[in-house]
Amino acid sequence: MLPQDTIVALATPPGAGAIAIIRISGLQALEIASKVFRSVSGKDILKQKTHTLHLGTIAEGNTVYDQVLLSLFKGPNSYTGENTVELSCHGSVYIQQQIIQLLLRKGCRMANAGEFTLRAFLNGKLDLSQAEAVADLIASDNEASHQVAMQQMRGGFSNEIARLREELLNFASLIELELDFAEEDVEFADRTQFNDLINRIEFVLKRLIDSFSVGNVIKNGIPVAIVGEPNVGKSTLLNALLNEERAIVSDIAGTTRDTIEDELVINGIGFRFIDTAGIRETQDVVEGIGIKKTFEKIAQAQVVIYLCPLAADENTVSSIKNETGKIKNQYPQKALIIVANKMDLYTEAQRNLLTDEIPELLFISAKTGSGVEELTDKLLSFVNTGALRNNETIVTNTRHYDALLKALEEIQKVRFGLTSGISADLMAIDIRQALYYFGEITGQVTNDELLGNIFANFCIGK
Amino acid sequence: MLPQDTIVALATPPGAGAIAIIRISGLQALEIASKVFRSVSGKDILKQKTHTLHLGTIAEGNTVYDQVLLSLFKGPNSYTGENTVELSCHGSVYIQQQIIQLLLRKGCRMANAGEFTLRAFLNGKLDLSQAEAVADLIASDNEASHQVAMQQMRGGFSNEIARLREELLNFASLIELELDFAEEDVEFADRTQFNDLINRIEFVLKRLIDSFSVGNVIKNGIPVAIVGEPNVGKSTLLNALLNEERAIVSDIAGTTRDTIEDELVINGIGFRFIDTAGIRETQDVVEGIGIKKTFEKIAQAQVVIYLCPLAADENTVSSIKNETGKIKNQYPQKALIIVANKMDLYTEAQRNLLTDEIPELLFISAKTGSGVEELTDKLLSFVNTGALRNNETIVTNTRHYDALLKALEEIQKVRFGLTSGISADLMAIDIRQALYYFGEITGQVTNDELLGNIFANFCIGK
Repeated sequence: MLPQDTIVALATPPGAGAIAIIRISGLQALEIASKVFRSVSGKDILKQKTHTLHLGTIAEGNTVYDQVLLSLFKGPNSYTGENTVELSCHGSVYIQQQIIQLLLRKGCRMANAGEFTLRAFLNGKLDLSQAEAVADLIASDNEASHQVAMQQMRGGFSNEIARLREELLNFASLIELELDFAEEDVEFADRTQFNDLINRIEFVLKRLIDSFSVGNVIKNGIPVAIVGEPNVGKSTLLNALLNEERAIVSDIAGTTRDTIEDELVINGIGFRFIDTAGIRETQDVVEGIGIKKTFEKIAQAQVVIYLCPLAADENTVSSIKNETGKIKNQYPQKALIIVANKMDLYTEAQRNLLTDEIPELLFISAKTGSGVEELTDKLLSFVNTGALRNNETIVTNTRHYDALLKALEEIQKVRFGLTSGISADLMAIDIRQALYYFGEITGQVTNDELLGNIFANFCIGK
Repeated sequence: MLPQDTIVALATPPGAGAIAIIRISGLQALEIASKVFRSVSGKDILKQKTHTLHLGTIAEGNTVYDQVLLSLFKGPNSYTGENTVELSCHGSVYIQQQIIQLLLRKGCRMANAGEFTLRAFLNGKLDLSQAEAVADLIASDNEASHQVAMQQMRGGFSNEIARLREELLNFASLIELELDFAEEDVEFADRTQFNDLINRIEFVLKRLIDSFSVGNVIKNGIPVAIVGEPNVGKSTLLNALLNEERAIVSDIAGTTRDTIEDELVINGIGFRFIDTAGIRETQDVVEGIGIKKTFEKIAQAQVVIYLCPLAADENTVSSIKNETGKIKNQYPQKALIIVANKMDLYTEAQRNLLTDEIPELLFISAKTGSGVEELTDKLLSFVNTGALRNNETIVTNTRHYDALLKALEEIQKVRFGLTSGISADLMAIDIRQALYYFGEITGQVTNDELLGNIFANFCIGK
């Protein structure tokens, strides 16, 4: 059943600003607003057209709370699909509170987190994956995560799923029709065509599932662990990459306390830098890197930057080889970049010694910025941005990923059934199950608990 | 000359939220918006009516930045009086930045603080005192300051000034006309009527000037100093008044470090409580209160609450009398409330002793809340809320107060001239000067420096 009550919430960020927006949606939105809104020109807002703006005051009796602009939307032509009123008031916290309290007295209820978007979903304005993209869009803080969320919100992902689902549904109907004529042993569904479809669905599902490894890092940022001994310039490296002084730089070893994480956007892709400074609990240089905490951080990272100590004797070289060798052995699948910072402090002979012995070593100067671009290029090379550039559908949501995995499992059962000539009634069950998982993504199949979990992560007012 | 360029700014509070509003105003507002806005229904926004809302996307080339609602206002029917567009976008900081940057590329300029309201003033949508009230309204955090700002924004104060100015202007014209016929010795201005007007103006100016003492505390909160020895329950008293745990309460003397200030709204009036805990630098109880810091705080306060030490022997009584006596002597004009906190810890005999000796003493219990209402009633009794209740014009702005004082001075010169039969040409100068000060309040007389000072205190986007 569709919601019967009328909800209200502040839709703009909390705190004082020039303007605040109070949003009202529901069956009684216009009626409740008309009780407290007095148009300057004496218009009755109940008689106004949708998508119009009206200047007036919010008042009760002799108390005038504010002069506001009222935006009027009549369902289904609104975000929620219901009648909706937005009040653009002066942004004092006092005024926001007074107006919301007044609306509560007049019959509104405080909206829960995400409840406006939930209503948009319930009223068929958005499917579930589009609704989820709204939250992702608000949370997006770089070009890549923004682009993926925009594509999903505009229906890119849903369309792809819906197309597959519809084709599969056609075959499901045909096969279920065969069941009605089971005694006559007819085949309405062309098995060759069906096999083609299953292959296509499997291909698309696998591509979408694969895209999650990119999608997940795009959504959450690519974790990069910076490892090395204290005082080799990790903070200055971070600063060079950040291009601003976010970490505190100092010449005193161990200045960076504990593990600090910092986020940084390079060419539109978010990176999370995990600085493992302060890990040297032993004086042994060779063993210094072998500390548990560093390896834990490396395990979480996708890319590892090893910062060389500031020296170029033979001991140092063998220590670098030894330590980076350990990382390569322990995590052969992780991308490793070996960086020597403060390149201006090395002599040419020292530089030659290092690059002779460790050819992949990258010299940079966090101070002058030299070599930093090469480093960022290397970082970007580890991200598969092809799908992003080609505007392909990328899965970023763990819930979608799980449903896709389950759908693939069912599709593979269907294919096995097709090749092994399983009976139509058994195959129909597998197809229905695959359709169920497709429906879970777009919200054609849903339940209150699932919706509750999804929308609880939204902000209030959306 | 009116502004020719088009300005843009975020109008909602900074940070992420469900919705953000980006405001564009100026000659090219519609043209610039039409370059980046694509209506979902293919409408050309240049051809749409004022006060309408349009759903669409913000895009440049193939890059879609967001789906937005566009509010369209055609000058002069807008806040600024210019063509204005408001974009209601998803509230991610990334999206806000991208859209604003796009608009800057398309020909907008970042708005300065208060520049939208400045334009509203320059375009005659608001007079200067109304414009100033907009900033006060956004800053208002309680009923009284909100009410006064609303009244001023809605023109209450301006109307009063404008009425006086107009009447005075009439007489000024008549008197200046007399100058043209100086040789004929005629009197166009009836001196008795003029005298009446001057009396009325003087009366109103004095009332407005007097109202500033109320207006100022309404705007800034009434300062209340809480004095007494450490550990007599100042924090718990504050908490009882605040009705929530804002100050840290502890049984350890001196917990409240330095001077803390806390604001609190009682019956719609703002109070600023200044806790002078930690002032006991001497062990001498009698001298304990005489410390410089406490007296400095008392000097700033309008009301003083003296918190008695937790004892009821004869020494304590004489100490209370001695210390409160000092305060009364030093600041005879300050309201003083003597409070004994933790009333539940006194025996009946102790309570009787105290009230016999110090009849004005008020027993309260911050813990149980008993006596707290009596205390708040007392605090409110020191505020002249009559003017507020009667919705009289109250001056809250120092600039207006100064102009009113100067206008009064000129008016008194005019009256002196009238009684002493000064020549019309000299009187005309004084009248013109008074008119000048009236004009300064409403902005009929102004200059760039004054406008710069006023609007620099606004927030960006207003």
